Amino acid sequence: MSSFPPLTNDLLLRAARQEPIPRTPVWMMRQAGRYLPEYQAVRSTHEFFDVVRTPALAAEVTLQPVERFPIDAAIIFSDILVIPQVLGLEVQMVKGKGPHFPDPLAEPADLSRLRTPDPATDLDYVLEALTLTRQRLNGRCPLIGFSGAPWTLMAYSIEGGGSKNFSASKRWLYRYPEASHELLQRITDTVIDYLDHQIQAGAQYVQVFDSWAGLLPQPLFETFALPYLAQIAEALTERHPDVPRVVFAKGAHYALDALADTDYSVISLDWTMDPAEARATVGSRAALQGNLDPSALYATPDDIRAQVRRMLDAFGPTGHIANLGHGMHPDHQPAHAGAFVDAVHAISEELRAADAPAGG
Amino acid sequence: MSSFPPLTNDLLLRAARQEPIPRTPVWMMRQAGRYLPEYQAVRSTHEFFDVVRTPALAAEVTLQPVERFPIDAAIIFSDILVIPQVLGLEVQMVKGKGPHFPDPLAEPADLSRLRTPDPATDLDYVLEALTLTRQRLNGRCPLIGFSGAPWTLMAYSIEGGGSKNFSASKRWLYRYPEASHELLQRITDTVIDYLDHQIQAGAQYVQVFDSWAGLLPQPLFETFALPYLAQIAEALTERHPDVPRVVFAKGAHYALDALADTDYSVISLDWTMDPAEARATVGSRAALQGNLDPSALYATPDDIRAQVRRMLDAFGPTGHIANLGHGMHPDHQPAHAGAFVDAVHAISEELRAADAPAGG
Repeated sequence: MSSFPPLTNDLLLRAARQEPIPRTPVWMMRQAGRYLPEYQAVRSTHEFFDVVRTPALAAEVTLQPVERFPIDAAIIFSDILVIPQVLGLEVQMVKGKGPHFPDPLAEPADLSRLRTPDPATDLDYVLEALTLTRQRLNGRCPLIGFSGAPWTLMAYSIEGGGSKNFSASKRWLYRYPEASHELLQRITDTVIDYLDHQIQAGAQYVQVFDSWAGLLPQPLFETFALPYLAQIAEALTERHPDVPRVVFAKGAHYALDALADTDYSVISLDWTMDPAEARATVGSRAALQGNLDPSALYATPDDIRAQVRRMLDAFGPTGHIANLGHGMHPDHQPAHAGAFVDAVHAISEELRAADAPAGG
Repeated sequence: MSSFPPLTNDLLLRAARQEPIPRTPVWMMRQAGRYLPEYQAVRSTHEFFDVVRTPALAAEVTLQPVERFPIDAAIIFSDILVIPQVLGLEVQMVKGKGPHFPDPLAEPADLSRLRTPDPATDLDYVLEALTLTRQRLNGRCPLIGFSGAPWTLMAYSIEGGGSKNFSASKRWLYRYPEASHELLQRITDTVIDYLDHQIQAGAQYVQVFDSWAGLLPQPLFETFALPYLAQIAEALTERHPDVPRVVFAKGAHYALDALADTDYSVISLDWTMDPAEARATVGSRAALQGNLDPSALYATPDDIRAQVRRMLDAFGPTGHIANLGHGMHPDHQPAHAGAFVDAVHAISEELRAADAPAGG
């Protein structure tokens, strides 16, 4: 493991540990991306996966929002579909359409097409990007690593891209439960190894994105998603107990209590979840991350501030990492993202001052 | 109002009134559709909106699942986008892509492009299809009418079709709240008039589809969706107190309690909702409809029966209308839909027999 400059802002990590802190940290899912003109400039001369695979470019794009906004975390620029890629599936990024697998998994026999990857070598470009970014961050804020969750990666690998109902992948769960478990376990093993290496390479907080959790009824989530999510958190806790583990199970509103019983330190909430109810359900079992509706950034800066105030009030000052309930949109205005970040900082300090004992 | 043959199967209506009944009624959202070869045969010579606009064809397609399965309801073959059409927006159905508005509403000024429709004349083809279908049903089971909900129709009218985040329409809610309310009220007025005429034309149970409710955080749902849903139920209750009103707010898991306080007689649940918890929340304020995961129909008939048993156990025998948690998929096998229907009938009778007092 390299030696890195000490952190001058560790609010993210302290919030994840539910420690008292002077203000609420904030970052945004997809904070490096198409809404930033400086990102568009890089993409004008480089394909999406070229940026992902070139550590200097990935680091540059990762740092763009850190240079522009006083945010409390950087998240490495990469893609959850690098795992299906190293498992042996081709993934293309089609402009205006999103990811496309020319030859997805169709039937259980196709599992024989998968190879057993070695993230240390197969995904060395992500690990190098993490190390380079961590150095270039120079301690300004923590660096976040991430992976797709097993069910979400299974869904893409079978569906071959976005889909209305993800019916092909759900069909596997109902029709081929054993093959589904085999695929999920293979993905899980790779994800654990990958995130382990990400932490060794410099990631200080790791998030698992189960973007399609909400496609599953609760019994299916508990059979095919939760056990693999839990395995990941458990293995990482054993190897890196001090690195917060974060789970974002989008749409799985029924899963909060079960996720709080796993080894995740932080549960990230989508915009449909009520912060106060989530806090009541989770208690002190995990910190909470989220969850302003990304579309709220279309509002005026004054309205954004009013919404941030409601959000911070509802989550309370301890164990909350401010974020959106999903990623930035390509047509968001950077100034509105800035208004969001500034509002979290200013209002969370103001609320703490108001709560402090007189003369304290 | 025409005079129609008396119903020989009114289980749907009695379940909606939460009366004790000998078995649980069942129908399926999108039960008339592409998974049926007899539907494909009609579509091979007629465009989608030609079927919708030709009462004899709409009636024929509506009756196809009734001829094939012993289901307890027919639902008129139509589309929720007929309302934007009569408001003056062009809607095309693009093969493999879904609905497309060549010229959607972009900014509030575009509201001036909308006309004030008269459903009695503008949508006479739906009303004629209802009357014809009701006659041809000959009392075999009740006939269901439906409409899109105001927010969902607003979302399509601004987005111009399906969308990843529906960010254009959500932008209106945050940026143009007054124009949004104006649009929602205009749609609501039309929906009320439309459903009133549907009932006069023969509909015996009317469902309002808020397919995109889950895009909204709870405060937005309560501001821009719920009040208009409530208006519709209230107006129909006043005009037709005996006709059950059904609401399907897909994805709005947080809305159950609020919906139970409106004048809807039935709340339709998507597949992410836990039936027992929903029953505990709603109590006797409404009957419940749903909610097997449509993808469960990819399972074997034996597995479908096991899942139906769990569903019926969880909902209990009173005030439950069995259905899927969303519509049939185009690649479903008709025999599996048949297994679902048969399982609901057989198992719901069996469960009632097991609960009956000895010698009773």
